[in-house]
Formats: sequence, C-alpha cells, structure tokens
Amino acid sequence: MNNADITFGSRNDKKIVEEKPVFAPKFDSDGLIPAMAMDATTKEPLMLAYMNKQSLKMTLSLGEAVYYSRSRQEIWHKGATSGHVQKIRDIRTDCDQDALILYVDQIGAGACHTGRSTCFYRSVDLEEGKNPAALKFTETDLTFDPTSVYGNK
Amino acid sequence: MNNADITFGSRNDKKIVEEKPVFAPKFDSDGLIPAMAMDATTKEPLMLAYMNKQSLKMTLSLGEAVYYSRSRQEIWHKGATSGHVQKIRDIRTDCDQDALILYVDQIGAGACHTGRSTCFYRSVDLEEGKNPAALKFTETDLTFDPTSVYGNK
Repeated sequence: MNNADITFGSRNDKKIVEEKPVFAPKFDSDGLIPAMAMDATTKEPLMLAYMNKQSLKMTLSLGEAVYYSRSRQEIWHKGATSGHVQKIRDIRTDCDQDALILYVDQIGAGACHTGRSTCFYRSVDLEEGKNPAALKFTETDLTFDPTSVYGNK
Repeated sequence: MNNADITFGSRNDKKIVEEKPVFAPKFDSDGLIPAMAMDATTKEPLMLAYMNKQSLKMTLSLGEAVYYSRSRQEIWHKGATSGHVQKIRDIRTDCDQDALILYVDQIGAGACHTGRSTCFYRSVDLEEGKNPAALKFTETDLTFDPTSVYGNK
C-alpha cells in the first residue's frame, strides 16, 4: 500500500480506541509514539525508539522498521547505513494505543550501534548497598565491529 | 535499601553511560523514562508506562513496579488498587540508558485495566487495502472483570 493511502482511525471515543479493531495510534505533543522492537523468534528485546506519523506509515508500506531520530531530527530507516534492517513480522499496540511493539526479523549481526545484538545488554544489579546503582552486563562480547559498520562516531 | 540512599551515576561521559556498569538513567524534559513491563516467565509484553526518578527509586527499594501516572500526575504503585502488583525479577536498560525493561512476576489475573492479561492484545492487520488501518485481537476474552477490580471508571 502506498504511504499516501494509509489512514488512521479517530481517537475521539475511548471505547472505540480500546475495544474496536481500528488502528488509532496516539502521537504525543512532539508527534511521537514509542516503539519497542523485539526479535520475532527469540522474543528478546532489541531496542526502543520512536516513530512519527510519517515513519509509521513508511513502516507499514515498506514492511521494515522506520523510526524518527530525535537526536538527528529526521526519518531513520533502520539499517539504511548498516544493512541491519528490521523486517516487520507483527506490530502490536496497547489498550490506549500510545505505544507500539514491533516483532521483527533482525537482519545482520545486531540492532545496537555499540556492536551488540541488542541495546538491552545490561541489567540493574538489584543487590543492596551499591551507590550509584550498579549494572551487570548480560552481553559483553561484541557481535560485530561497530566502527567498520557505522564508521567513527 | 532506603529510597534516600539510592543514587544514580553521572551522564556526563557517553562512554561511561554506554560501556560501564554504572546505572545513569536519562529522564526526559518531563522527568520521565519509559519502562516496558514483560512477564519474566513467558517473556510476553504486559504494558508500557513511565517512571520519574522517585518512582524508579521506589521500584528499586520496594521490589515492585512503581510508575508515574502522566494522566493523574502522581506516583502509581501498580496493583495498589487491584492487587495486581508486579514483582521485579530483572530490570534492563539500553545503550544510552533512556529506556527500561522490567521483567516481572505479574500477580493476579492481569496487567490491563480492560480486564486482559496484557495491554498489548491487538496486532495491526498488515494485509493491504484497509483504511483506516485495522487491528486484529490476539486476546479477546477477559481474564478478570475490570469493574469488580477497579470499579466503574
């Protein structure tokens, strides 16, 4: 489907937003909605990013994740530089439709610019008595060389 | 650990934020960080909500998810009304530490105020030609009666 042909439902009626099969995503005051990408096979989380209306429509029409980069303030087709595109398998939304989950096939070695398969490679150390609060690495080894993929940043 | 004793690391150095075992969460201009709660056993997503610094410290000290309700503008100890508390099993953060994932044991019948186990009970229908874009239900039956748990809202 062409971008221009995709429309979203009205958010006027809470009951419709919560209980009807109408996609009516809520974009915040900056025009953004958070989207958590998860590996469709392993169900492991990959990254959390944001979409604006245009990038969500591009995601739907292209079948690959397209975000909006808040730091660069531009449309961000994930993988355009690295080749690490995310093929859309499923998109879920929540009760009030102000969040998205993307189940994707992550192409290439990983989702994270640090060279890891996932951006969520650290857990909070929940044991008491450490200040500042400490993190533990759940993925230490790099799965790819970020400099060769992304260049020096 | 007492709330007052918990501190977070400095965010001055990107290399430390991304590569060191120091928890230095980024709160946005509204003082909030998004937190995706997922079932620790099934790895299914439950809900996406937000925390401010105080609620994150309460989460760490209490061992149960405490959010900040943007609509009510107040600290929100999930389950205080419904009994459906979320016991923290693991908290992960991402490369730039501006997002959290909570792996939880969801106590009670479900996470969603609509009476379902998860807030993410609908998928976008990715087949072409439907406008406005359509949703498909992935969980139709209610797992609990929301009115008896939350009252009439």
